[in-house]
Amino acid sequence: MHFFQTDKTKHFIPQYKQFLEEHLYPIELDVLTKPFRQSLPRLQALRAKAKTLGLFNPHLTEKDGGIGLTLVEFAQVSEVLGTSPLGHYIFNCNAPDIGNMELMHEFASDALKEKYLKPLQRGEIRSCFAMTEPEFAGSNPVNMGTTAKRVGDNYAISGHKWFTSSADGAAFTIVMAMTDSENKNPYERASMIIVPLPHDGVEFVRNIPVMGDAGEDYLSHAELKFNNCTVPITNRVGDEGKGFALAQARLGPGRIHHCMRWIGICERAFDMLCKRAATRQLDEHKMLGHQQVIQHWIAECRANITAARLMVLHTAHAMEAQGAKAVKEEISTIKFFVANVLMDVLDKAIQVHGALGITDDSLLSFWYRHERAARIYDGPDEVHKTALAKSILKQYGLKF
Amino acid sequence: MHFFQTDKTKHFIPQYKQFLEEHLYPIELDVLTKPFRQSLPRLQALRAKAKTLGLFNPHLTEKDGGIGLTLVEFAQVSEVLGTSPLGHYIFNCNAPDIGNMELMHEFASDALKEKYLKPLQRGEIRSCFAMTEPEFAGSNPVNMGTTAKRVGDNYAISGHKWFTSSADGAAFTIVMAMTDSENKNPYERASMIIVPLPHDGVEFVRNIPVMGDAGEDYLSHAELKFNNCTVPITNRVGDEGKGFALAQARLGPGRIHHCMRWIGICERAFDMLCKRAATRQLDEHKMLGHQQVIQHWIAECRANITAARLMVLHTAHAMEAQGAKAVKEEISTIKFFVANVLMDVLDKAIQVHGALGITDDSLLSFWYRHERAARIYDGPDEVHKTALAKSILKQYGLKF
Amino acid sequence: MHFFQTDKTKHFIPQYKQFLEEHLYPIELDVLTKPFRQSLPRLQALRAKAKTLGLFNPHLTEKDGGIGLTLVEFAQVSEVLGTSPLGHYIFNCNAPDIGNMELMHEFASDALKEKYLKPLQRGEIRSCFAMTEPEFAGSNPVNMGTTAKRVGDNYAISGHKWFTSSADGAAFTIVMAMTDSENKNPYERASMIIVPLPHDGVEFVRNIPVMGDAGEDYLSHAELKFNNCTVPITNRVGDEGKGFALAQARLGPGRIHHCMRWIGICERAFDMLCKRAATRQLDEHKMLGHQQVIQHWIAECRANITAARLMVLHTAHAMEAQGAKAVKEEISTIKFFVANVLMDVLDKAIQVHGALGITDDSLLSFWYRHERAARIYDGPDEVHKTALAKSILKQYGLKF
Amino acid sequence: MHFFQTDKTKHFIPQYKQFLEEHLYPIELDVLTKPFRQSLPRLQALRAKAKTLGLFNPHLTEKDGGIGLTLVEFAQVSEVLGTSPLGHYIFNCNAPDIGNMELMHEFASDALKEKYLKPLQRGEIRSCFAMTEPEFAGSNPVNMGTTAKRVGDNYAISGHKWFTSSADGAAFTIVMAMTDSENKNPYERASMIIVPLPHDGVEFVRNIPVMGDAGEDYLSHAELKFNNCTVPITNRVGDEGKGFALAQARLGPGRIHHCMRWIGICERAFDMLCKRAATRQLDEHKMLGHQQVIQHWIAECRANITAARLMVLHTAHAMEAQGAKAVKEEISTIKFFVANVLMDVLDKAIQVHGALGITDDSLLSFWYRHERAARIYDGPDEVHKTALAKSILKQYGLKF
Repeated sequence: MHFFQTDKTKHFIPQYKQFLEEHLYPIELDVLTKPFRQSLPRLQALRAKAKTLGLFNPHLTEKDGGIGLTLVEFAQVSEVLGTSPLGHYIFNCNAPDIGNMELMHEFASDALKEKYLKPLQRGEIRSCFAMTEPEFAGSNPVNMGTTAKRVGDNYAISGHKWFTSSADGAAFTIVMAMTDSENKNPYERASMIIVPLPHDGVEFVRNIPVMGDAGEDYLSHAELKFNNCTVPITNRVGDEGKGFALAQARLGPGRIHHCMRWIGICERAFDMLCKRAATRQLDEHKMLGHQQVIQHWIAECRANITAARLMVLHTAHAMEAQGAKAVKEEISTIKFFVANVLMDVLDKAIQVHGALGITDDSLLSFWYRHERAARIYDGPDEVHKTALAKSILKQYGLKF
Repeated sequence: MHFFQTDKTKHFIPQYKQFLEEHLYPIELDVLTKPFRQSLPRLQALRAKAKTLGLFNPHLTEKDGGIGLTLVEFAQVSEVLGTSPLGHYIFNCNAPDIGNMELMHEFASDALKEKYLKPLQRGEIRSCFAMTEPEFAGSNPVNMGTTAKRVGDNYAISGHKWFTSSADGAAFTIVMAMTDSENKNPYERASMIIVPLPHDGVEFVRNIPVMGDAGEDYLSHAELKFNNCTVPITNRVGDEGKGFALAQARLGPGRIHHCMRWIGICERAFDMLCKRAATRQLDEHKMLGHQQVIQHWIAECRANITAARLMVLHTAHAMEAQGAKAVKEEISTIKFFVANVLMDVLDKAIQVHGALGITDDSLLSFWYRHERAARIYDGPDEVHKTALAKSILKQYGLKF
Repeated sequence: MHFFQTDKTKHFIPQYKQFLEEHLYPIELDVLTKPFRQSLPRLQALRAKAKTLGLFNPHLTEKDGGIGLTLVEFAQVSEVLGTSPLGHYIFNCNAPDIGNMELMHEFASDALKEKYLKPLQRGEIRSCFAMTEPEFAGSNPVNMGTTAKRVGDNYAISGHKWFTSSADGAAFTIVMAMTDSENKNPYERASMIIVPLPHDGVEFVRNIPVMGDAGEDYLSHAELKFNNCTVPITNRVGDEGKGFALAQARLGPGRIHHCMRWIGICERAFDMLCKRAATRQLDEHKMLGHQQVIQHWIAECRANITAARLMVLHTAHAMEAQGAKAVKEEISTIKFFVANVLMDVLDKAIQVHGALGITDDSLLSFWYRHERAARIYDGPDEVHKTALAKSILKQYGLKF
Repeated sequence: MHFFQTDKTKHFIPQYKQFLEEHLYPIELDVLTKPFRQSLPRLQALRAKAKTLGLFNPHLTEKDGGIGLTLVEFAQVSEVLGTSPLGHYIFNCNAPDIGNMELMHEFASDALKEKYLKPLQRGEIRSCFAMTEPEFAGSNPVNMGTTAKRVGDNYAISGHKWFTSSADGAAFTIVMAMTDSENKNPYERASMIIVPLPHDGVEFVRNIPVMGDAGEDYLSHAELKFNNCTVPITNRVGDEGKGFALAQARLGPGRIHHCMRWIGICERAFDMLCKRAATRQLDEHKMLGHQQVIQHWIAECRANITAARLMVLHTAHAMEAQGAKAVKEEISTIKFFVANVLMDVLDKAIQVHGALGITDDSLLSFWYRHERAARIYDGPDEVHKTALAKSILKQYGLKF
């Protein structure tokens, strides 16, 4: 069903597919099982190649050096890139950089744009986003211990962050900190501030080992301590007290990107599942795929992935037409719906691969480990389900 | 998300909604809990009213007395009608009549059309479709005991059928019978033949009691015996040996109708669920809807129903664009996907209603009982999942 | 695994099995599909036969005319009886009578025992239990509208009850009513009072139609109105204000009985499922049971039923050893665990039976319809899960 | 419920618990996140301490240096040891050594026992078991490429094995090889042969990286190539051609051990889940455990773990009373039942831990990654479900 196909998707998607098949699929496992920095030279070469081919920055307007896709078009590209764990990185539209670019594009001063956004868009630097804190439940975003106190023309930032993805090697971070923790409106207490890295006031505690991976460079999640870290007030992105609103704005299209990336993973894992089922000998007469139970997994996975994609693309379409606020319910819906389809498809694909599926010879192990987080970050399933239901029940007059 | 809205749906759907709310919702429970014939007079009056309002036959072209909707448009009307167990009946687009109309429209001779199709379209008579047999697994449609032997210019039909829905009171049945049971191609053994009812050669064994309902008139499932039942060869619909192909053709759009009817049930049950949750007092401080578990059911149901609708409408759209054959996989997909969403939504709605949900004071009990069949008829879940998976695995080179 | 076998179970269980196979399995479908009173003569004859054989009242001590089983032994008999919808009724240990007998045995005055308990034990009369109310969530048992006001030596009872099972034809009801609705302790507000039936002050509103069955006599659920219904204070069972405590006491072993009855249904449905799978022809080479998906259902059902039985028997054992209070958590556990296994087994058995499974030619339809209530009455799943979890979390110091 | 408690369990279980709490819980995370050999000295010290305390070898008879437990008693000890990933290792009853000990104890010649079994029982060496092959589906155990050809008084073994757990550093392996690959009875083609390690004829290809861990020493899964590896015929364990029968014998009690180890993991993860729920602040008024959805997870996990334990202990009990053959169905049942409960409990525990749960700061990540294999090794779920169902359906006369 090619309902959302456009001239641009017809033009670009085959090019992205070809690039991934030629350049990423052959190397991705090797990259993922080594310390990341060892692979930087060849990854940089591929990023350069992507630029040459005019495929870099698929999320940016042509003016900004991109290819000028609509959200619905980029969503479809994002699916293709998601089929490799390196896809978004190679084309410079990986989290957290893409979210930071969107945020700065919309809310940063011209000076900040010049200094931080432009080199990010050119792929010269990487960035990170310091929001989650170990001592506070991430599912409550107005709950936070990090503070930014005004001292003259500066902010002095103190606090403890973790899961600051890709901080290792990043040129700057955007940090979420309380600038007015007494504000009666809990949604107006925090602000977003750019901190260049490395920085005297920022202690890089460690890369947190996650699901068996020590983490390094782009593929890492850092624990950071801000110890009276001082930056000029002009480093703030957006108005003071608008941190929460900006975070929400950042998340809107971000969830579309994530969900489409997950669907890319689903499709690749589904393809692996089917290939294995069609070729793995069970006995002299039978392949694995002749087993009815495996056939039913295939049918159920197919149905669920298709359902997931339709929901995300319709949400993207509606977001473009009506704005992010109008599709708040749909955004919550796709967040938990797609993340669960993803985990289910990966589980089935592993089961069909048997012992091979749990080895690091298979991408499935990488995704099984690292995408478990999909049901946790950006709001766990439970938060999104509750939010969606409350929004519905309010329409029935229930008070909360 | 109004992606599939058209001028016609904008014009007609509010009218259908209003009709149901005014005329059907208030009476449906009363009709369902009485022998059906007691309600015929007032139902006939409503059918007449529907004609007067120009809402009768939403599935037919304007030339044939309908309102000329595309499949995607009719699908959306079908959802609205599905919110009441009487909806399709009142507007003359209920199964099995709608399927018989489509079949005769495409394949019957002019004489048969004049005699059987026209009065059916005018809503003057009802019909039925005799295919399922108690001794043969319905999931294997080439497996059948009923035979039609040529005797001169007649067929002499003998066999045992059941689940011939709405046979009680029908003016004719289309019967599926083996005309060439030795044909090497099992798919070319059967033909479809019209038998007027009542008929000397057709023994009406009984209305089968189904899920606590004795069954009567339109709301019934008959067991029939064909005892050397003789009808002219000209009563055949389509070519001899093409019964299976016709049955498939009949099922294609039929599954769209069914699936959208189920989505209508889902939406109504979901609405009942939310209303109950928002208004049922748990204690002095709390409504049922304040319970997080119920909130999550609401979120999951909402997600699943939306996913189901998108899948069906996209399938309908593709069927119109590319024909029924091209969407064989999608048709199998929606059949099992939507039927399972339906049963899950009904289960949750009942649970939220507590004791009330299992009484016949609630529509939920009716649907819980009668829609369990959705996972069985027109191919049980298992058959569709297997078919879908085999179709996919063939693309990976697996042989069956 | 015959871990809980005793001399008595070895002696009696084969006799109960034989009785059911000879006398109940052949007639049960016929009884269930007719108005119940039509079958009373032959059912009374079977009850008389059960007495003659010394199998009546398996729940009572030998002194009281029973066969003197322990709870663990009776549990195993209850499973066997549960394989037929008529089993418990024939042997006089059906709900609600068995619960009323236990209650009166422990808490009623000698006079009440003589007048109500003895004839009930002899099987001469039937009784009912009026607790649930339509206007109050049954899941909150201290929430109730029915009041019993002292007027001289009498209680004047007013209120609205429904789901008073088997009230149609019962010789008395035990009614739960508020005798002190202002009591600070909500658990000491209600009392239990015996009301002989029929009674001037009790309006028999109707048998509530449930899941397609009008209901009659033993197989019915009544709606009753108590309109200033006056009975002597001496009709109270137990102390004033102890109604809730008595209800809890009544439910303890009652849940064991119910759960074992459900396991009996599971085993019978599982047997039907396997028989069907082993004998239903799919094509010339294959039975339904050759399908791997159906094999897996069989394996999963088998595992779940065995797990359920072990949990119930261990709970029964612990209840005998340590009393009902000590196994409060286990009682909650088996209530939701077994009810869900039951619904799952019935669903699978129906699916394997195809169209036949939804007809009233099959017991499966009866159970599918009427046992849906298992997840609702005596506390819905949600209430038991919450209770169990709170009890566990309190041990971790969480306050509620 | 202490149904299976004995004097010995009362005596020993508190000692094992205390040892784990004092010595293993504090160090296990540190051990698991380093290359294993770095921890050998302190682990050896703990093994020595276990010996001193008389807790070493809980699976052996007193005569053989153990503590003389029945299978049901050892099962309960195994649960306790399973609460730490190091538990079985410290007490010398870890897979694959325990299985090899059982096998050699029953089937090996005295000379082999002296040379290999005794030092293994004394904890002086480790061993491994080479059965699984990358080119053959492990779920079909008679499907194998490794051959052992008689050459004079020797076997010359050639073949490719992987998932030979703990081979890195093992003093010998038992290898499963075809000694008579033409035998008409596929179950009599293979034999088991001891090969001392390292060995000229055995190429240690690598430790397979599994779920993010490179693997080392005891915590490893090797890929091995047998290149004309020559050992004396007297190294065979049991008769020639009996390899499959021995493997089955090895698996019987082995599955009890595994299942109880999994239940130990379940209980520890459940404890972590509850602790987190009871102490993690959501906002100023609420802990995570006040959320109803989390409460229901707790209730469902509790029910499932209890069910799982009862099934395993009853199976162990029946195996002791009637032998392993009599409980073939139960063994299949617990294998898939418990493995699925395990994965579900781990998933819920991670979700409740949020970001922390996916870090290697938490045991949950270790188990989530490495216990995914539980649904694959020793026969994947699908094989056990099919085996159980076929065994049941045969009793209904179905032929396979």
